[in-house]
Amino acid sequence: MKQTLEKITKEKTIKWPDFFNVINNELFILEENLTKKLPAKSLLLQEIVSYIFKAGGKRLRPALCFLIAKSTGEITNKHIILSELTELIHTASLIHDDIIDSANLRRGRETINSLWNDKISVITGDFLFAQASIRLGELENTEIVKIYAKVLSDLCDGEIEQYSSKFNPDISWEHYLNKSTTKTASLFSAACKSSAILNNQEKKIINQAEQFGNNLGIAFQIIDDVLDFTSNSKEIGKEVGTDLKQGIITAPALFAVNSTDIRANQIKTLIENRFNNGSEEDFDKAIRLVHELGGCEKAKQLAYDYIDKAKENLDFVKDGDLKTYLSKAGDFILERIS
Amino acid sequence: MKQTLEKITKEKTIKWPDFFNVINNELFILEENLTKKLPAKSLLLQEIVSYIFKAGGKRLRPALCFLIAKSTGEITNKHIILSELTELIHTASLIHDDIIDSANLRRGRETINSLWNDKISVITGDFLFAQASIRLGELENTEIVKIYAKVLSDLCDGEIEQYSSKFNPDISWEHYLNKSTTKTASLFSAACKSSAILNNQEKKIINQAEQFGNNLGIAFQIIDDVLDFTSNSKEIGKEVGTDLKQGIITAPALFAVNSTDIRANQIKTLIENRFNNGSEEDFDKAIRLVHELGGCEKAKQLAYDYIDKAKENLDFVKDGDLKTYLSKAGDFILERIS
Repeated sequence: MKQTLEKITKEKTIKWPDFFNVINNELFILEENLTKKLPAKSLLLQEIVSYIFKAGGKRLRPALCFLIAKSTGEITNKHIILSELTELIHTASLIHDDIIDSANLRRGRETINSLWNDKISVITGDFLFAQASIRLGELENTEIVKIYAKVLSDLCDGEIEQYSSKFNPDISWEHYLNKSTTKTASLFSAACKSSAILNNQEKKIINQAEQFGNNLGIAFQIIDDVLDFTSNSKEIGKEVGTDLKQGIITAPALFAVNSTDIRANQIKTLIENRFNNGSEEDFDKAIRLVHELGGCEKAKQLAYDYIDKAKENLDFVKDGDLKTYLSKAGDFILERIS
Repeated sequence: MKQTLEKITKEKTIKWPDFFNVINNELFILEENLTKKLPAKSLLLQEIVSYIFKAGGKRLRPALCFLIAKSTGEITNKHIILSELTELIHTASLIHDDIIDSANLRRGRETINSLWNDKISVITGDFLFAQASIRLGELENTEIVKIYAKVLSDLCDGEIEQYSSKFNPDISWEHYLNKSTTKTASLFSAACKSSAILNNQEKKIINQAEQFGNNLGIAFQIIDDVLDFTSNSKEIGKEVGTDLKQGIITAPALFAVNSTDIRANQIKTLIENRFNNGSEEDFDKAIRLVHELGGCEKAKQLAYDYIDKAKENLDFVKDGDLKTYLSKAGDFILERIS
């Protein structure tokens, strides 16, 4: 089975980290469920779903589900369902986000709205959300239903907050971190928390698992935001600077804007003027200024701080391989920018 | 309270039928919850949500929830939650459908995608779905979670089936009825079934309530499809013939296409040729032929048959006012075309 998985991952050119080996079997089942067992009734939808899940993706949220499960008991069938619904919600939200952000690239491939159109993207996202709801029902656990309902609400809040504060360089750190929590960390923490709940853990441990996921999720979002400033489209799988171009102010820009350096005001003005109605020159200048003012370095440090916090939440895992693997999940997030 | 409700309904120019009086208080609470208590965090979303729910709507699904509840016990707080989540899912699906169908009018007012844009419609629909999920969690009933997860899946299936079979006059009656079940009747039957479940009824009664909702829902869809051929935009709240124009073949057209009259082939050809690439003249001709071949009359009769079936499912309600009201809910659906 391991060989088969390696073949699949190779085909998809996903570079899964070594410490995923301990959950290889479960990741393999998840992969099978996502790529072959979703009941897409129309040929068109089958084609799209296949396109989406064969694009790979890190499966980081499912991996966290499984690692927390192993750390708090064993990986049950319900954990497989939990990991699947988590990945379905994640993917559905990306598809709808790509409509909202008019994005053309995702994970190095064209987005659904770019390859097909917005209408198809609406249906596909709704289909994946519906499939996630069916899995949620299968868990037969009302506490987890509530947790994931809150995630769906958070995802919307995050997207709305982002949409409503475009081209506003005066947003606060509280606003940015709150948006990162709702838009990203909420699903990470739900996955970790629910995984512990399925193993009937005591409240203290469930809370620690939740906090671990939350801190990891915030770090993940910050790193994603740094990558938007530093990578080329091949690495990150989407165009560079797309967030800032759309007026979305993320950690690196926020550090730059709040710098005491006189150039901070230049960036603010460029953003407020929407880069002189989209002039490439002004946009490039803003990107350059963010770099010059150390926005990316400071944001990286912030991400490191959140990973440290996450590791401090691992008291509930006894010293050994699993604790190491969960720590490595944090390092894996950071490695994306190393 | 009744006076306040009448004031609200008057403001909204909703013409609720008299037999709704027996559930006036509950409809009032529902109205308050929908128009004032949804936690829309951004001003923009508050404005949109207010616009949507102040447009009125018949609140037929919530009314069925309440009438079934009264027929099987009493209307509890959980029934209020159930009715609210049912209306939220219904509204969310309309908003997403309007993107998919590029619709400009709904309930006599401009659609969200028309007044704002598709991106805002995606967020708004997702927000309402998320709010529905939160209410679903509050019910703390895993059976109902499964029922509504199936509804979400059905809604997508219905939309996809419709999207995938555009301009195909060879679709079968089975296809049309299946699409009407998934796209419309599924939510009606879920509301009725879950209402009986919340009153801890025995399986036989739950099944009858489900069947009642299902038959009513199919009739509702058929009437909606007839109205698309017969009403002007003021009556139905959307433009006339929009379904056929988009290639969606509904009951009246299906009766005409399957007629033994020689003109049936003319309609088929017009549809297959997409009305000569959208010629108004050819489209008007197709509409006229559907009327000439009695498509609307036959479809009305089909709707009557389903309402009769629905009434036959009311054995579980003892003779009296409530049975009369539930029967009237069926007649109310038919009255839309009288």
